[in-house]
Amino acid sequence: MKIQLLSREAPQCLHPDARIRAEAQHVMDTKTKPLGALGRIESLAVDLCVMQNTLSPCVERKLMLVFAGDHGLTEEGISAYPREVTRQMVRNFADGGAAINVICRQYDIELHVIDIGVDGDIPASDGILGMKIRPGTRNSAVTDAMTRDEAIRALEAGMTAFDRFHTREPVQILGLGEMGIGNTSSSALMISALSETGLEDLIGRGTGVDDVQLAHKKKVLRKVFAFHRLDRRPPVEVLCTVGGFEIAGMAGAALAASAAGVPVVLDGVISTAAGLLAVALEPCCREYLIIGHRSVEPAQKAAARVLGLEPVLDLEMRLGEGTGAALTMNLAETACRILREMASFDDAGVSGKV
Amino acid sequence: MKIQLLSREAPQCLHPDARIRAEAQHVMDTKTKPLGALGRIESLAVDLCVMQNTLSPCVERKLMLVFAGDHGLTEEGISAYPREVTRQMVRNFADGGAAINVICRQYDIELHVIDIGVDGDIPASDGILGMKIRPGTRNSAVTDAMTRDEAIRALEAGMTAFDRFHTREPVQILGLGEMGIGNTSSSALMISALSETGLEDLIGRGTGVDDVQLAHKKKVLRKVFAFHRLDRRPPVEVLCTVGGFEIAGMAGAALAASAAGVPVVLDGVISTAAGLLAVALEPCCREYLIIGHRSVEPAQKAAARVLGLEPVLDLEMRLGEGTGAALTMNLAETACRILREMASFDDAGVSGKV
Repeated sequence: MKIQLLSREAPQCLHPDARIRAEAQHVMDTKTKPLGALGRIESLAVDLCVMQNTLSPCVERKLMLVFAGDHGLTEEGISAYPREVTRQMVRNFADGGAAINVICRQYDIELHVIDIGVDGDIPASDGILGMKIRPGTRNSAVTDAMTRDEAIRALEAGMTAFDRFHTREPVQILGLGEMGIGNTSSSALMISALSETGLEDLIGRGTGVDDVQLAHKKKVLRKVFAFHRLDRRPPVEVLCTVGGFEIAGMAGAALAASAAGVPVVLDGVISTAAGLLAVALEPCCREYLIIGHRSVEPAQKAAARVLGLEPVLDLEMRLGEGTGAALTMNLAETACRILREMASFDDAGVSGKV
Repeated sequence: MKIQLLSREAPQCLHPDARIRAEAQHVMDTKTKPLGALGRIESLAVDLCVMQNTLSPCVERKLMLVFAGDHGLTEEGISAYPREVTRQMVRNFADGGAAINVICRQYDIELHVIDIGVDGDIPASDGILGMKIRPGTRNSAVTDAMTRDEAIRALEAGMTAFDRFHTREPVQILGLGEMGIGNTSSSALMISALSETGLEDLIGRGTGVDDVQLAHKKKVLRKVFAFHRLDRRPPVEVLCTVGGFEIAGMAGAALAASAAGVPVVLDGVISTAAGLLAVALEPCCREYLIIGHRSVEPAQKAAARVLGLEPVLDLEMRLGEGTGAALTMNLAETACRILREMASFDDAGVSGKV
């Protein structure tokens, strides 16, 4: 079930040079501060050196891709918000009024929104990139969410979207975000299957279902899991049976970025599900992933454990759209600047430990 | 032991209008996102509305004041780095090579460093603000760290430093940082006394002492605590006996800023000790405090508990210099922009919950 499935040329990950990690750590350790005193900023800086294969990492050209798609499973009443909110929020992105717009403006991140599966027409005049596979997935409670052909095309759309911007002007760091009512359900199912973790503990409140709705959501997801025998499915079949177009799009973009040696910042639970899928398809993709923030959704933890990654920020966020990824892209810039601009003990004539 | 001690006019805190909290929360709740989905960004935004007494908070004019001073207690061998590092690091600040320089440049924060008690001459040409009370405190293991007159003058120097920049161009948010070899010891002692928490659990590794040095540090601090009978001292006497000039300076700046209705972002354990001192002197100062980041130093937690504040960021940092405060000042700007720029459900025509 490897990436050779794809009809376009398979992206092969660069293999980061492990030697540079030790060199980067050494450079960091000579900076005028106690060893390790910048905490996660330091580990982020060293990771970026490895990903960019340089001791002078730079992430000034920042791209955020937000994939939007609908979910047939919303017919089962598993979300706090109605399905049309996906389309309405895409409109809000186009108008610059969503949280991700505000944060990208502040942090000088180029933001593009991709309609990969929204139910409803998105006018081209809105500046939304149209790559619609289908107006929403099918209802996974009764059939496969997408065909194999649709799944492959959605992965390829994500690759194409990244390549399009990277070709125009090389991207130094990619953030991934999404919009799709119903997609915490799809993510919990995918993560349970791909991480071999019991579904029960992975189901959260999404955009905010109450206790009664949560009990219903759990009941529906248990049924869907059993219906598709998700405990014995290879990755692409997990995507076909219970995935989302926006999740496939993010996975494709992550594959293309890692193949180009570009660091990828995931956001919350849904993009972490996409990261897990991408790594299942091409394991070396993992070397280019950063998890932007700790989601309050429980499934993210299971996915992060399998990926061997710790989220950078923990701000109790659960919005999606790439908002947590964007904040961490800015911190990644801080990490790079620390490495490039800070003086060493020798440079500054500062004494070492007694 | 109130602020009336001070020879200059006592700064009185503005009393934030509690009504605006409910209004700000309402505005935040109408934004196009699930309730509470931006986590700490939301609470930060609402706090800033209260502090600035407006529903359109703005923190674009950001000031960082870093106070530097030496500690006589370093004679007892309680730090991993030699005393001269304080002076050397002030030089590094002047040259723009320290972590706080890098972060302030990225985040457009105006940075000023104040020599309030460095041991050694700092050339005026370095751009360092000279307000030296004395070249380091006295050794608190054998005598009071400073006289009452020195303590008052150090508090006043902090106020004057803030007022100087605020008068020139109104500051919208103040960050506080410090440099002072030995000052985690001073902070642990002050916090133990001011928070009435047992000293034993409050002593950390500072800039990185090893196990043997840590045992020695604990022994010395226990002795100092008993010598000054710190369990029964009013705040200004705690400052006189075991404090630091840079800690007094930060407390004074916090008092002056809160008196002007300006939010104050504390950094790690040392500035949180300063915040605790400021609130002990003038309780309403507390309404203007934000703790930038969770320090790995254990004493910060005790101080934060007494202040009733939760640190915003947790990035495993322990550098000081205001670095954690600066990162949170930038997040505070994000919080303000979210409130000012995000569309409401009505504006954007997005449906509410089902």
